[in-house]
Amino acid sequence: MASSFAKTYTRSSVRVSAPATIANLGPGYDIIGMALNEPRDIVEVSLEKEGGDLVAIEGVGSEAISCDPKKNSAAVAGRAVLEKVGRDDLYLKMKIIKGVPPKSGLGSSGASSAAGAYSVNLLLGMPLRGEDLLQCAMEGERAACGSPHADNVAPALFGGVVFISSFKPIKVVRFDALKNLEIVVITPEVEIGEEKTKIARQILPASVPLQDIVLQTQAFGKLLVGLMKGDVVLMGEGISGDVIIERARAKLIPKFEDLKRRALEAGAYGFSISGAGPSVFALCSNNMGKQLGANLKSILEEEGIRSSCSVHLNAEEGVKVVS
Amino acid sequence: MASSFAKTYTRSSVRVSAPATIANLGPGYDIIGMALNEPRDIVEVSLEKEGGDLVAIEGVGSEAISCDPKKNSAAVAGRAVLEKVGRDDLYLKMKIIKGVPPKSGLGSSGASSAAGAYSVNLLLGMPLRGEDLLQCAMEGERAACGSPHADNVAPALFGGVVFISSFKPIKVVRFDALKNLEIVVITPEVEIGEEKTKIARQILPASVPLQDIVLQTQAFGKLLVGLMKGDVVLMGEGISGDVIIERARAKLIPKFEDLKRRALEAGAYGFSISGAGPSVFALCSNNMGKQLGANLKSILEEEGIRSSCSVHLNAEEGVKVVS
Repeated sequence: MASSFAKTYTRSSVRVSAPATIANLGPGYDIIGMALNEPRDIVEVSLEKEGGDLVAIEGVGSEAISCDPKKNSAAVAGRAVLEKVGRDDLYLKMKIIKGVPPKSGLGSSGASSAAGAYSVNLLLGMPLRGEDLLQCAMEGERAACGSPHADNVAPALFGGVVFISSFKPIKVVRFDALKNLEIVVITPEVEIGEEKTKIARQILPASVPLQDIVLQTQAFGKLLVGLMKGDVVLMGEGISGDVIIERARAKLIPKFEDLKRRALEAGAYGFSISGAGPSVFALCSNNMGKQLGANLKSILEEEGIRSSCSVHLNAEEGVKVVS
Repeated sequence: MASSFAKTYTRSSVRVSAPATIANLGPGYDIIGMALNEPRDIVEVSLEKEGGDLVAIEGVGSEAISCDPKKNSAAVAGRAVLEKVGRDDLYLKMKIIKGVPPKSGLGSSGASSAAGAYSVNLLLGMPLRGEDLLQCAMEGERAACGSPHADNVAPALFGGVVFISSFKPIKVVRFDALKNLEIVVITPEVEIGEEKTKIARQILPASVPLQDIVLQTQAFGKLLVGLMKGDVVLMGEGISGDVIIERARAKLIPKFEDLKRRALEAGAYGFSISGAGPSVFALCSNNMGKQLGANLKSILEEEGIRSSCSVHLNAEEGVKVVS
């Protein structure tokens, strides 16, 4: 991918932010993701010549996140940059201000990983670009989830919508952000468990019948063709057309079928689970998000289930420098 | 799909041709196909007020094809048009000149079905367009293969490259033909059996591990993104990236792995099985096809396997009127 990073900086410390992301977009399990405009994680970092790596965390859900530099996503990603460019003589002094809630399915560790890798790279004068930087950021995902998946961390880095076109070597194709659309996110207050992403992966079927694979491939095709042609109806049908991952994970999300039906009846283009859940999302036209969100939230309220609801845009920018 | 058919005709008889096609293009099992410039089936038809449907066949492999109007693809497709527009008082008098060899994996029944449906529609003044006509043509495929798949008949009708974006109802997205590329087709002389397509379907796995589904979906994504961006390298990687259908069917094709390796080493962009096989195809740059074809043919010759080899273009037009 041609990278379009900001010009290089030489500073003693930097402060960057990286956004929440929606991975999978329905049928694109592990291979596509979308950057949201907010919420965002902020990472402040300086590079020191002694003292060991140091991590401090504050913000949303920070109590659940390890400060151990060997386990913390942002620190692991930053350390991977140092090692990749041969500067493992330096130490990170990093402060993370969490804005993306952990365990919500909105790419919390992906945002931290992207910000961690980008911030350290920026301090070093941007020696890494594109997929080389992404690979370091993915090490943060490996630390958080056990698997170095790129479908959150790539859009958190690059913005827009990112298709992971190859795993080995990692390669991506970035598409500009969708215009004139809103993304409604509903996060029901359910706890899937300590190791949410792992459990959400374990619930997936070990194998799938061939006819479902045809439907899944077709749905992913609709998503991509719609995205590239600017045909949001086709794209939305693709998003809603997941017959494998959504079918398995929907069991973990209260009232999933009702939420999806109501969203599509109300005119949303597409609806599915965000990443490993429990957040769900609807893609809808401009100015429709607020009403749709209230509508969906009420379905959960009727069952006594609390939820948070927010309306987002697809962000053109991924990581950016915060002044 | 917006149709772009020729202007309507009012004639007592018409003569149209429809091309060979390559279905699947690797990972797009049942959902994508490409029109070749040749070979082509020709269908001549007139509509009579009495006498019953009559079918005559000549040309390549015609001895293997039923003249029974209830079983013949072109006639069944033509009859489906008559029924759909409420003109089942009329009878077909149809002559089919086969140019696309049956049982080769080049969409022989798809070409006949497309020509059969189109020719009758033309005689009636083109009452059907786009997917409505396609649906009639698909009835010809049902008669030939037992399943009304659209991945040959849609590109045979519409030309270019056609993505089947929905089955129920049938919907397609057509892409303009690939420019500056050649398609090398090698057809080894092997007989898979009487009911070739059925057997080639039976050999497919009943279910597939999830990690292969991710790779397959990714490969199909590369195919589509490459196609839409005009990035033939990416598209070729997608074509070559089928890990499900090709892996199963390759067993039916002599020296498949050697052919694929040699083609890619020689610089072909992509290589896979054409439809249900036994034909295989390579996508390569202009003016490279002839040499590559000879190269691949020699691999089979060394094993004492006869084969035919031909070099094609991706045709912009599907069915067309023959004067």
